[in-house]
Amino acid sequence: METKMKRIKHPKLKSLVVTPEEAASWINDGMTLGLSGFTKAGDAKAVPFALIKRAETETFKVNIYTGASLGSDVDTAFAEAGIVGKRLPFQADPVMRSKINNGDMLFVDQHLSHTAELIRAEVIGPIDFAILEAVSISEDGFIIPTTSVGNSAIFAEHAKHIIVEINMAQPEILEGLHDIYDTGKQGERQPIPLTKPDDRIGTTGIKVDPAKIKGIVFTNQLDSPSTIVAPDAETKQMADHLLDFLRLEIRQGRLTEKLAPLQSGIGSVANAVLHGMVDSEFTDLDIYSEVLQDSVFDLIDAGKVRSASCCSITLSEDKMDQVFGNFEKYRDKIIMRPQEISNHPEIIRRLGLISINTALEFDIYGNVNSTHVSGTNMMNGIGGSGDFARNARLAIFVTKSIAKGGKISSVVPFVSHVDHTEHDVDIVVTEQGYADLRGLAPRERVPLIIENCVHPTYRAQMWEYYTEALGRGGQTPHVLEKAFLWHTNLKQQGTMLQEVGQLV
Amino acid sequence: METKMKRIKHPKLKSLVVTPEEAASWINDGMTLGLSGFTKAGDAKAVPFALIKRAETETFKVNIYTGASLGSDVDTAFAEAGIVGKRLPFQADPVMRSKINNGDMLFVDQHLSHTAELIRAEVIGPIDFAILEAVSISEDGFIIPTTSVGNSAIFAEHAKHIIVEINMAQPEILEGLHDIYDTGKQGERQPIPLTKPDDRIGTTGIKVDPAKIKGIVFTNQLDSPSTIVAPDAETKQMADHLLDFLRLEIRQGRLTEKLAPLQSGIGSVANAVLHGMVDSEFTDLDIYSEVLQDSVFDLIDAGKVRSASCCSITLSEDKMDQVFGNFEKYRDKIIMRPQEISNHPEIIRRLGLISINTALEFDIYGNVNSTHVSGTNMMNGIGGSGDFARNARLAIFVTKSIAKGGKISSVVPFVSHVDHTEHDVDIVVTEQGYADLRGLAPRERVPLIIENCVHPTYRAQMWEYYTEALGRGGQTPHVLEKAFLWHTNLKQQGTMLQEVGQLV
Ligand SMILES: CC(C)(COP(=O)(O)OP(=O)(O)OC[C@H]1O[C@@H](n2cnc3c(N)ncnc32)[C@H](O)[C@@H]1OP(=O)(O)O)[C@@H](O)C(=O)NCCC(=O)NCCS
Ligand SMILES: CC(C)(COP(=O)(O)OP(=O)(O)OC[C@H]1O[C@@H](n2cnc3c(N)ncnc32)[C@H](O)[C@@H]1OP(=O)(O)O)[C@@H](O)C(=O)NCCC(=O)NCCS
Repeated sequence: METKMKRIKHPKLKSLVVTPEEAASWINDGMTLGLSGFTKAGDAKAVPFALIKRAETETFKVNIYTGASLGSDVDTAFAEAGIVGKRLPFQADPVMRSKINNGDMLFVDQHLSHTAELIRAEVIGPIDFAILEAVSISEDGFIIPTTSVGNSAIFAEHAKHIIVEINMAQPEILEGLHDIYDTGKQGERQPIPLTKPDDRIGTTGIKVDPAKIKGIVFTNQLDSPSTIVAPDAETKQMADHLLDFLRLEIRQGRLTEKLAPLQSGIGSVANAVLHGMVDSEFTDLDIYSEVLQDSVFDLIDAGKVRSASCCSITLSEDKMDQVFGNFEKYRDKIIMRPQEISNHPEIIRRLGLISINTALEFDIYGNVNSTHVSGTNMMNGIGGSGDFARNARLAIFVTKSIAKGGKISSVVPFVSHVDHTEHDVDIVVTEQGYADLRGLAPRERVPLIIENCVHPTYRAQMWEYYTEALGRGGQTPHVLEKAFLWHTNLKQQGTMLQEVGQLV
Repeated sequence: METKMKRIKHPKLKSLVVTPEEAASWINDGMTLGLSGFTKAGDAKAVPFALIKRAETETFKVNIYTGASLGSDVDTAFAEAGIVGKRLPFQADPVMRSKINNGDMLFVDQHLSHTAELIRAEVIGPIDFAILEAVSISEDGFIIPTTSVGNSAIFAEHAKHIIVEINMAQPEILEGLHDIYDTGKQGERQPIPLTKPDDRIGTTGIKVDPAKIKGIVFTNQLDSPSTIVAPDAETKQMADHLLDFLRLEIRQGRLTEKLAPLQSGIGSVANAVLHGMVDSEFTDLDIYSEVLQDSVFDLIDAGKVRSASCCSITLSEDKMDQVFGNFEKYRDKIIMRPQEISNHPEIIRRLGLISINTALEFDIYGNVNSTHVSGTNMMNGIGGSGDFARNARLAIFVTKSIAKGGKISSVVPFVSHVDHTEHDVDIVVTEQGYADLRGLAPRERVPLIIENCVHPTYRAQMWEYYTEALGRGGQTPHVLEKAFLWHTNLKQQGTMLQEVGQLV
């Protein structure tokens, strides 16, 4: 207990230690909770489970706001307990996903930089309890976050009460990494004074009114490891295509070998792309991203990284041991920011990021679907992909050209849901190749996408669709009554593949 | 001639005066031209026509980049002459539109704040000639723009040569209104130091290397007047709904009677909305917009306006006389900026704009189509609507609920093209009412949109679609094979109206 109490440095707060059960008992039906946690890192772990436990004997619902997805199976348990009214802004849990798609709970899929503005403007909320994982509470009452910052600062500022979960499994060496900055209200704010990816502009902890802290809980539990899979032949091919593209940009004088600050989305492909730079000529790289995955630490090991800014660190089990076991090697390079800042359009546009995110599907004109399987079923959410793609120097989307053993083409005539419009998408990449859409009219884009990105088994039928569409004319030729035929065929016949001639 | 020459204050440039024909003779097949002009204001008028004249006896093509749409029938004549290879980033001309839709010329539909970045980064271009309308050239060689700034500054900076059209019909009193600011390159730039809508951060003219000025042409021709129609019963209803919404925001403490800086798109509806504030309690308004239309000057007359920032002034014929005849009344309030700054995400987000733009159609989930009739045929382009909607405090889209005498419902099950995703759209308004979509999950949005926005003749068939979709489940329920049935019915049967029961 004594070592634990050392983590509460503010003397008056020491008396607030309670059990998770007691803290959870303060939460009432209809309340809105703001939880720390971003892509499985730094999530509140004990109070949510104590609350879920209450659902065994009580009936209630709460709204759950987070940074992004939670680990530790919290979202699974929330969904199974059926106690969530509304969830936002992102989730990535299979059980929750199916509850959402069944209409059992409401999910609001938001740009990750927008949630803070909506809370600040009191459009959503009010937040009854912020429940925030911390390494410690400083002498002056600052909450020191752990492996993510997410929306914790804005939750703390706007919540009526705060519950802190001090996680003894999160090393104190994390202190000093964070850089907490509040933009202030719209209309009253100054420019965000960040002009280099590694600028520090804020405080190392979250400033809170100590009177709002209602309870402190101790936990001792590692973050859930990321389940990222190592690069495979196809993700490696995609990485190679992308590196080819970047090399061409350098030859054309648009980039240097330092590239530009890199953002790379979650998932195996994005990880593989960064991993592909380990043995490359690229050097002195800045990362300005949402999440740091394993590959960023491989790049640091390879001496390729000047700085790495993020709002969360999500590692596989092995990598976690390695990184936190040798943290002095990494700490000078890393800065952790609120997601409003890691994803802020002002900064993304100013720094001119190269942004790499994964699409579920894209279409022959470059519209991208990141969220909805067959236009209807939510996968995870748009996350930060839109924050980045809209304002990046290079908005790159990657996806394998086919899914489900070839039954699905991830390049389609018309995406079944649009998360990123043709105006916002610069480069699309599959294992087949890439298409550079910048400055191209719709009709110029199609042949590039079909020949460079579509899987060979789907190329003929894509040409058939486009040829028929072209016959009808227009800036963006389409055969509207057949635009979703591939998707409806998938549903009815189990595959998007058509007999040749079916289209005409 | 003597009065004319007084407008060229830089002594060494006086010798560069040529005829429009001579200037046009410098332009060769395959060149790219950057023309001043934004929503019919401040467009280059003489050299384009001299160039078009050459097409009577010569065969050539040029690429035409502008701020936005041109007046003076320049785009009509370009299109008829068939000399345009690629046009960007916006147009609004019926003849050009049909050439684009026939595939006779290429059109790249860009966010209006993005074109400058693409030129600066040398992704598009190079620009052979910038052809810029000016009031005058200052002693130190600054080009003083006229009634728009558009992309003129970035064209001047990156063009190999510059041709200046000094338009004697544009009054010299315009000098001093402009505020030209260059962001610098991505990755090397500082924050844009604008924190209030009326901050001046730049120079009153466009700084150019005098050696790049190859010729100066004199013209004497007014801008084309805007063809805006006065508020009618329906646009007035829409304005009233919107004012109701804004009043509710005030009652809820989210806004004050000063509102927040207002952006309002081109067109009659947007004009009517601002006009609706003339007799309102709103006061001390700041306008931070792309285009100032008639209504802004009515608001100034009514003593409602603190400041009005824009990148172009587009007035009807009467209003032009009135405004330029009494300019001292207005000039202190007006600032004209490059479109990159009027539409910059950094500023839009910082100031927290209220942004009002017109949709062609929107769907039951709040996706908006601004550009493509039936998903295929280009109307004008996305313009600045996406720059504003994505980053505004309030992204509002307005449209009449029906078009073409009721044969078209402008609220549809699934928009046939997406320019603004459900993530970016806050409020939708028709003459029927408004729906506030903020913080709502897709299934919560539908009843609001159907009951408040859909025209009564289409409500039953919309419920029918949605009920069937709901039966299939999902975060965003759809019946994909029927998603575009309304559009295909329009094409095949001349109306979107269905017999009751046809859907099931
Ligand atoms: C798009 C996204 C779901 C891809 O996830 P991923 O794990 O990188 O990619 P995978 O190829 O493994 O695909 C995930 C699943 O989608 C399926 N899938 C892929 N393409 C598909 C398509 N066109 N249609 C239907 N399903 C598809 C895969 O088969 C796989 O299914 P499984 O889970 O049953 O195996 C994910 O990147 C995402 O949620 N993105 C949106 C958020 C975002 O971009 N954030 C970035 C900032 S961090
Ligand atoms: C969307 C837009 C075309 C509407 O134009 P508008 O003049 O304000 O509105 P109108 O209601 O007069 O509609 C224009 C035409 O579209 C037609 N129309 C309206 N809704 C339609 C629909 N759902 N489907 C097909 N046609 C439709 C109208 O009938 C009218 O046709 P007409 O020219 O043959 O009379 C226009 O606002 C635009 O181009 N917007 C995109 C750019 C933008 O938003 N810029 C804002 C920053 S300045």
